[in-house]
Amino acid sequence: MKKTSVRTRVLTGTVVAAALAAATVGAVSASAESTETPAVPAAVKADTQNKNLAQSSGLTIDAATRAAQAALDAATKAGQHVSVAVVDRDGVTRVLLKGDGAGPQAPASAERKAFTAVSWNAPTSELAKRLAQAPNLKDIPGTLFLAGGAPIQSKGAPIAAVGVAGAPSGDLDEQFAQAGVAELAK
Amino acid sequence: MKKTSVRTRVLTGTVVAAALAAATVGAVSASAESTETPAVPAAVKADTQNKNLAQSSGLTIDAATRAAQAALDAATKAGQHVSVAVVDRDGVTRVLLKGDGAGPQAPASAERKAFTAVSWNAPTSELAKRLAQAPNLKDIPGTLFLAGGAPIQSKGAPIAAVGVAGAPSGDLDEQFAQAGVAELAK
Amino acid sequence: MKKTSVRTRVLTGTVVAAALAAATVGAVSASAESTETPAVPAAVKADTQNKNLAQSSGLTIDAATRAAQAALDAATKAGQHVSVAVVDRDGVTRVLLKGDGAGPQAPASAERKAFTAVSWNAPTSELAKRLAQAPNLKDIPGTLFLAGGAPIQSKGAPIAAVGVAGAPSGDLDEQFAQAGVAELAK
Amino acid sequence: MKKTSVRTRVLTGTVVAAALAAATVGAVSASAESTETPAVPAAVKADTQNKNLAQSSGLTIDAATRAAQAALDAATKAGQHVSVAVVDRDGVTRVLLKGDGAGPQAPASAERKAFTAVSWNAPTSELAKRLAQAPNLKDIPGTLFLAGGAPIQSKGAPIAAVGVAGAPSGDLDEQFAQAGVAELAK
Amino acid sequence: MKKTSVRTRVLTGTVVAAALAAATVGAVSASAESTETPAVPAAVKADTQNKNLAQSSGLTIDAATRAAQAALDAATKAGQHVSVAVVDRDGVTRVLLKGDGAGPQAPASAERKAFTAVSWNAPTSELAKRLAQAPNLKDIPGTLFLAGGAPIQSKGAPIAAVGVAGAPSGDLDEQFAQAGVAELAK
Amino acid sequence: MKKTSVRTRVLTGTVVAAALAAATVGAVSASAESTETPAVPAAVKADTQNKNLAQSSGLTIDAATRAAQAALDAATKAGQHVSVAVVDRDGVTRVLLKGDGAGPQAPASAERKAFTAVSWNAPTSELAKRLAQAPNLKDIPGTLFLAGGAPIQSKGAPIAAVGVAGAPSGDLDEQFAQAGVAELAK
Amino acid sequence: MKKTSVRTRVLTGTVVAAALAAATVGAVSASAESTETPAVPAAVKADTQNKNLAQSSGLTIDAATRAAQAALDAATKAGQHVSVAVVDRDGVTRVLLKGDGAGPQAPASAERKAFTAVSWNAPTSELAKRLAQAPNLKDIPGTLFLAGGAPIQSKGAPIAAVGVAGAPSGDLDEQFAQAGVAELAK
Amino acid sequence: MKKTSVRTRVLTGTVVAAALAAATVGAVSASAESTETPAVPAAVKADTQNKNLAQSSGLTIDAATRAAQAALDAATKAGQHVSVAVVDRDGVTRVLLKGDGAGPQAPASAERKAFTAVSWNAPTSELAKRLAQAPNLKDIPGTLFLAGGAPIQSKGAPIAAVGVAGAPSGDLDEQFAQAGVAELAK
Repeated sequence: MKKTSVRTRVLTGTVVAAALAAATVGAVSASAESTETPAVPAAVKADTQNKNLAQSSGLTIDAATRAAQAALDAATKAGQHVSVAVVDRDGVTRVLLKGDGAGPQAPASAERKAFTAVSWNAPTSELAKRLAQAPNLKDIPGTLFLAGGAPIQSKGAPIAAVGVAGAPSGDLDEQFAQAGVAELAK
Repeated sequence: MKKTSVRTRVLTGTVVAAALAAATVGAVSASAESTETPAVPAAVKADTQNKNLAQSSGLTIDAATRAAQAALDAATKAGQHVSVAVVDRDGVTRVLLKGDGAGPQAPASAERKAFTAVSWNAPTSELAKRLAQAPNLKDIPGTLFLAGGAPIQSKGAPIAAVGVAGAPSGDLDEQFAQAGVAELAK
Repeated sequence: MKKTSVRTRVLTGTVVAAALAAATVGAVSASAESTETPAVPAAVKADTQNKNLAQSSGLTIDAATRAAQAALDAATKAGQHVSVAVVDRDGVTRVLLKGDGAGPQAPASAERKAFTAVSWNAPTSELAKRLAQAPNLKDIPGTLFLAGGAPIQSKGAPIAAVGVAGAPSGDLDEQFAQAGVAELAK
Repeated sequence: MKKTSVRTRVLTGTVVAAALAAATVGAVSASAESTETPAVPAAVKADTQNKNLAQSSGLTIDAATRAAQAALDAATKAGQHVSVAVVDRDGVTRVLLKGDGAGPQAPASAERKAFTAVSWNAPTSELAKRLAQAPNLKDIPGTLFLAGGAPIQSKGAPIAAVGVAGAPSGDLDEQFAQAGVAELAK
Repeated sequence: MKKTSVRTRVLTGTVVAAALAAATVGAVSASAESTETPAVPAAVKADTQNKNLAQSSGLTIDAATRAAQAALDAATKAGQHVSVAVVDRDGVTRVLLKGDGAGPQAPASAERKAFTAVSWNAPTSELAKRLAQAPNLKDIPGTLFLAGGAPIQSKGAPIAAVGVAGAPSGDLDEQFAQAGVAELAK
Repeated sequence: MKKTSVRTRVLTGTVVAAALAAATVGAVSASAESTETPAVPAAVKADTQNKNLAQSSGLTIDAATRAAQAALDAATKAGQHVSVAVVDRDGVTRVLLKGDGAGPQAPASAERKAFTAVSWNAPTSELAKRLAQAPNLKDIPGTLFLAGGAPIQSKGAPIAAVGVAGAPSGDLDEQFAQAGVAELAK
Repeated sequence: MKKTSVRTRVLTGTVVAAALAAATVGAVSASAESTETPAVPAAVKADTQNKNLAQSSGLTIDAATRAAQAALDAATKAGQHVSVAVVDRDGVTRVLLKGDGAGPQAPASAERKAFTAVSWNAPTSELAKRLAQAPNLKDIPGTLFLAGGAPIQSKGAPIAAVGVAGAPSGDLDEQFAQAGVAELAK
Repeated sequence: MKKTSVRTRVLTGTVVAAALAAATVGAVSASAESTETPAVPAAVKADTQNKNLAQSSGLTIDAATRAAQAALDAATKAGQHVSVAVVDRDGVTRVLLKGDGAGPQAPASAERKAFTAVSWNAPTSELAKRLAQAPNLKDIPGTLFLAGGAPIQSKGAPIAAVGVAGAPSGDLDEQFAQAGVAELAK
């Protein structure tokens, strides 16, 4: 599992936040009171040669594994026992790691944070704030509105997400998740 | 899948709201403080020839598909990636469409919104407000109290519902759902 | 819960068998080798006044309860401890009775037998035989291919079913289920 | 299904409330601040002839069916479309009726209300108030803290419960449930 | 947890087999070809003072724990790593023990064997043989037709069962389960 | 929902069978006795500009809806009441249609047939035969080994599948499913 | 099941609270606003002889059973009807006891309280308070934030937990759970 | 994620088979006809300093990840698209990898194969043969009796397992799983 040294166009967590801010501005000008979240762009393109088909982007398993490993390494370096999940745009788990000493609640929590981040194309710390306006969002099956999930984007669209659970705070979990996202930009 | 040009008696979303307002008035006069929601009329009639049987109305698959397609078309025109569900009076899914680029949370969310709308014969945007009085309604299995579900009525009784999920706000989702309902009144 | 004395057109168990035999003949002549089961007619009719609607027949709760009670009474008279379920055409339980002394496996078993009978419009004793040709039918979720389920028909189409479980043999269970069906023909 | 005319010792809903009030007083004097709910007495007695055994009381299926039917009749008389469930002390459904025109959410709601009422030996309207002190009670699997469930007691201990769902308010649902309980005191 | 030295009337595993044999004879004379299993008697009695109530027998938690412990001790003595479950007549788990070194499949397996034994009032080694005649019995939810479950009877009726899983063969598992049953006859 | 008249490269059912036959030959020469099924090619390509990404092909919702509708139309023309599902390569449902008069078992059956076909890139009628060699394949969660599922391929790799259920035989179901696949080659 | 009289190093409930207080202080000084909970130490050690392996501590079934029995005895002495669960560090149930007269909600509640306590290494009464800062923690699957769960520690790390449910208040439940923990320090 | 070059004592797949053969011989001499499978030794040891505790061995996440990666690499080299799971002795997933192009059925299949292998301490190809004697073993929840699972042992006891799914045959899957096991012996 060698790490690629090529700098890719996958955005890191920091860029994600910037992109979201921009998107929000646009949305607000369009329909200020009714839009709770920025629209989620899609990493899907019509196939020019076959009208029945669309092409979509996703992570290779090699990239997904490197992201997960980087998140776990960041947690271990900080002395935390966590689980890490990487899900694809369909919310399907590509990589799951249950770290040494992680609690029994951690794997499902990591998977749901990643599922939530990829669903709305935003870090779960941001999404948790949106519950103030739409509290029942959290009743959608498969979601978890706790900090610790971070989307992986390609040209602004969510193609995957990293979720981390098990640290004493969601903010720490999300730092580790962002370390996983950042790994793909090296 | 040709569209029928006959104007049917299925009520559109706008009429739904009016009917509900009227029903609420009646209910209030009867038991002002204890009634949280208007009574739900039933599209079931005793069979005059056989006392064991009752007749009930439902959508044809052709009508259900047209409603779903109209809701999806409305979302696509607005640049949104959504899922659409049409359920019958038993809450059973008749049509499910997962649009291009819709997130993984969208199909179950659409189905639950439709289930909720058909259960209480009201748009889920209305139903979400009722949680102020009865917050635990949302713990009933299968429900989701988020805007985006709209009932389809026949003579005031719910016979189906359209649910939409995936737009940046529930209000947008519900606009698309209402476009699906309106299709049946063309 | 008074019993109606009007003789209805709901077919009894015996008539069911006859109808099935006839249907099988027809099916065989059409496509002798590929058809495993007779086609299931539908108790659904287009609504002549509204192209979007279809009318379907179902049991009233009064009729469903009488059928369930008659099945339970037949079992009790035979000294057996059973559960009885009546489901509608959507497979949804209308009545469930867990009789005195019935085992913990009986209610789910009764519901699944009824679900299976209404799905294929035949007694489950017949359906169990069809597994010889299509053994994986029994892997369809919600089904149980054990004698004890009997369909309730209207003009040959399944509109409900009675399921019984808990007697020492499925044949006994089915006798009680047929007693439930027969009650509606009184 | 003839109704017994013998007046039994099963308490009606009204008496239930009285008993609860009394129990609360006693509990308060014992440990005022830490006790959220009155203790639940058990309808279980040691078997004097065999130390390994305990005897427990439950409803006969005949009694459970009469209670369910009475609750449904009360709802029908009030023009409401509901589902009714009667569960035993183990929370297992003895009788389930899905009334004509009841919504798809009603059966599970009725079962959970009955489950909740038998678990804490109180009407669910009372139990819903206890959430003010212990809001996470409602996260216990199988429960639903909505008015509409009423316990059936024998010598103060819960031996069964009736749950009703589908009316415009939980208070109406609970009235019907109490009508089911009261039937057993006739 | 002191052991009672009083010899109770709970039947041991050996007596169970005898009772079953007798019951089978009776059943055969009644309906030789259609009865797959002996009828299951019920440990439920009408309450002479209240027509609405029935009395049923069950194990005390003390007895259930002693039975489970005896089964585990027998396995440990034989050098086997097992799980043990004791369920009541409703199939509800009263005691579950996951022994040292028992595999992850053992607890659910033990619970299902006990569930199966109490459902049909026979050791699961016997019940597994009945699949020759009724192979789809094993599709009933909650059941497992593997040796290792043994019913606990009172006056011939099943009131509980012990299930054991984890030994190299079901026969060994059932020996340990029978040791649990036998403990109650000391 | 206009139909595209462009002939696409999506293979029809007939071509599928041919491709499978070829693949089997290759597989047999490589490891004759151990290979139960042909290898499944993947519609995933490395992204030449970003080593972290892979591109994959899928159906547009428009194409998926046309396929589903064509399958339903074929069934309706044959007088059969069925459900139709179209799933993507992840097994996620893109379109579900529950036709008029289809039984309650049909939707889940259609979804599972489609899931199974896309998993192994073959019609389920073929896959059912493979159970002779590997009978426990059918225990994999989400699968159903009954005729009625047909894969949709792009360059030999499965990108979606159509599943149909409800006709009297799986062979009929599969004919309708193949009509759905064939629609995309028009 | 003899009780060991050797005083072990397993910490009692009281010590648990003290340790938590200390840990919180340390955490606060490190990152005051972002850390919601103290870090959870792990009872896992690298194996010095084999780099692939780690050693972890857990309770013997004998110890787990004694703890559960002590908790149940404490409840019985206080006249309460409860269920008790002991789970290991993986959240897997080692012992489950459903006491005489315990309600149907009690076993799952006890298991979830124990699961929650072992996940965060704190009594659930403490953990419930943390919801003020992180309310969505309670949406993590398998958890229950109600007093009544108490962790069992070895050198400060959680290796198991006791959960109790069924008393009129969570505080009482937790007292009984702590009695179970304390038993292991005798 | 550097690979350790130290040769550990974890047994490779080949040694596993040898150990099993030996164990079988011993088992046969003890109880020839009743023992279906060799006893499963436990990687659990009493703690000499604390009678309440037992020590158990498990893989580090580093070792588990290397094993999973080695299995995936072996599959990729052979041109197969698979999923790989590594579970611990409790059957809990430590690592899950869904490889590029793996079908939707593969992850759950890989997890269940690993669960099955660790439960009975044998490759699932061996375990599938045991169904000839005990066909209902495969009804135990969580199991899958298909080749592709291989246990990881420490001193003969199962401490983890690797499961692989997605190749055209289970034999190929198991080869890849054994490559994962072998990695730990390097």
